[in-house]
Amino acid sequence: MLNLVEHIQWKDDALVLLDQTLLPTETKFISLKTIEEVWEAIKVLRVRGAPAIGVSAAYGLYLGVRDFNGNDVADFVKHVDGKATYLESSRPTAVNLSWAVRKVFSKLKSTKGLSVTDLKALMLDEAHKIFAEDHEACRQIGVHGARLIKSGQTVLTHCNAGGLATARYGTALAPVYVAHEQGMKVSVIADETRPLLQGARLTAFELQRAGIPVTVICDNMAAVVMSQKKVDLVIVGADRIAANGDFANKIGTYGVAILAKEHGIPFYCAAPLSTFDMNLSDGSKIPIEERAASEISHGFGKQTTPDGISVFNPAFDVTPHSYVRGFICEKGVIEPPFETNLKALFSR
Amino acid sequence: MLNLVEHIQWKDDALVLLDQTLLPTETKFISLKTIEEVWEAIKVLRVRGAPAIGVSAAYGLYLGVRDFNGNDVADFVKHVDGKATYLESSRPTAVNLSWAVRKVFSKLKSTKGLSVTDLKALMLDEAHKIFAEDHEACRQIGVHGARLIKSGQTVLTHCNAGGLATARYGTALAPVYVAHEQGMKVSVIADETRPLLQGARLTAFELQRAGIPVTVICDNMAAVVMSQKKVDLVIVGADRIAANGDFANKIGTYGVAILAKEHGIPFYCAAPLSTFDMNLSDGSKIPIEERAASEISHGFGKQTTPDGISVFNPAFDVTPHSYVRGFICEKGVIEPPFETNLKALFSR
Repeated sequence: MLNLVEHIQWKDDALVLLDQTLLPTETKFISLKTIEEVWEAIKVLRVRGAPAIGVSAAYGLYLGVRDFNGNDVADFVKHVDGKATYLESSRPTAVNLSWAVRKVFSKLKSTKGLSVTDLKALMLDEAHKIFAEDHEACRQIGVHGARLIKSGQTVLTHCNAGGLATARYGTALAPVYVAHEQGMKVSVIADETRPLLQGARLTAFELQRAGIPVTVICDNMAAVVMSQKKVDLVIVGADRIAANGDFANKIGTYGVAILAKEHGIPFYCAAPLSTFDMNLSDGSKIPIEERAASEISHGFGKQTTPDGISVFNPAFDVTPHSYVRGFICEKGVIEPPFETNLKALFSR
Repeated sequence: MLNLVEHIQWKDDALVLLDQTLLPTETKFISLKTIEEVWEAIKVLRVRGAPAIGVSAAYGLYLGVRDFNGNDVADFVKHVDGKATYLESSRPTAVNLSWAVRKVFSKLKSTKGLSVTDLKALMLDEAHKIFAEDHEACRQIGVHGARLIKSGQTVLTHCNAGGLATARYGTALAPVYVAHEQGMKVSVIADETRPLLQGARLTAFELQRAGIPVTVICDNMAAVVMSQKKVDLVIVGADRIAANGDFANKIGTYGVAILAKEHGIPFYCAAPLSTFDMNLSDGSKIPIEERAASEISHGFGKQTTPDGISVFNPAFDVTPHSYVRGFICEKGVIEPPFETNLKALFSR
């Protein structure tokens, strides 16, 4: 049995989250009872990772409306819509956030003849379903992705697209976990992932806990470990994937994709279908969040640039589909040509 | 007049260094009076950058022998040899360290009829010469390199190969400084350069002081600024260059070279002739220093990986010559084929 941290739970009518900003040195759970607390937790990355944000947002939406006073269903639906928009404002890039709150909202609008009380219960139920579906999707990503791994191999990953980024299992790390469950020897090289060090703090944390060998490197060491033939394949997650296979993921992913190509190493992106945004024709349309300069200038809690220095801090980059060997999703591994194959998959 | 920090000085019979480990928040000069203090300063990077290490080591060697008691020249030469070997042990990759101490030592051995007192004076004089020659070489690198820059352009650099890495002016930054002196508008994007952040701390510091616009990015953002066409050329320094043009430089340089190639951006390496090691046929023979795990796991005094995590921390990587558009040295810009052209240059 894998030792995966249960970092998202619904307990005593509250959303209980592991505060990921405190990892790896402190394991502290926080209990959120209001939508504002959930908004803040998403904003400052106490919970992060596109699928985990989606799951948390579904619970957050319920928390935002459970105290609604009144019996008018139309008023209630309007109220939920406003709260959904509010939650969506917490982070712009990950499509799962919007996907999850809109999924709950659609469910709400499609039902007939239920009372406000019934609708509230339905919303909580829907959040539980999103959680369970994400768990299952990640497990299936793992099953499909594990077929790409041979025992003895090493996977390089960037940022954290692990259990901590989803309900459980992760996306990029799911194939590693399933390969490990199947008895394969598999190890991981984790880019530390500046500025917020999700690789060093989170990926290393959860793999160590699961008993999988992991080596942390600085982002600028990825090229050298590839040239030393220490990397057999690269698997990363995604925050949003366009209809042609261009995808946004943590800043640095695009560089890793180029390095993998140069060294002839297969580069895969693992994500559930909820991460695909078939309304976007290509990656140039994905909004890219720019984050605070202080993440770079005062990393590690210490000032590392002179006063008044200009910095550039995009949270994500877009990797063109031409660098991708395949997308590992819950339905299998999607190969090129992506535009055609994704269209076929989503029209089924 | 450029405002370049005078970070290496000979003052009151001591080697006065700006302690670069304290930058950018503290500007503190330290006065070194023993060879052991110089060894420690090189080891822990209070002074760093291949040419600056060479200059400091030449002074350090003098400090190590000036209190030699005795008049026997043969004994003195033997004593100097031992101290030279000791200094060479401080850092293995930069060839300039060994080059400088051996240059002083050769001078010593080639003289005839001088007393021990005379030889001591000669050694100090030789250190002053190495300083002056490095200053002039860097200035010439700047003059040659500035011809590669057009006004309005942006140079991306990695680590710090600036004035702080040499006697003055720098290697990779020398073309930028000279272009600026010539009235061109030139700006710099500086990779922060994990783990020790020489780009964020040092390159940003000295460029800001000189009034040249600089933007700091995390190492993993180099690909995205290139794809956004924000970079016109890349110039980096070198710690050792082999006879075929393969060269060792700060970890991450190789990755930057690959990214530049992928985006069609010219990639130059700037270094004085003292950085070329014509005894090494190719880059595979360059010894690569591996540094303490704590530089990654405890960046700036804060723990960023879980306890007991494995890390890999090579201080340098080797960039194959095929990625290099040219080497900018004090004699001009050396173009491919490097093996032939370097051989011709060094046999002159």
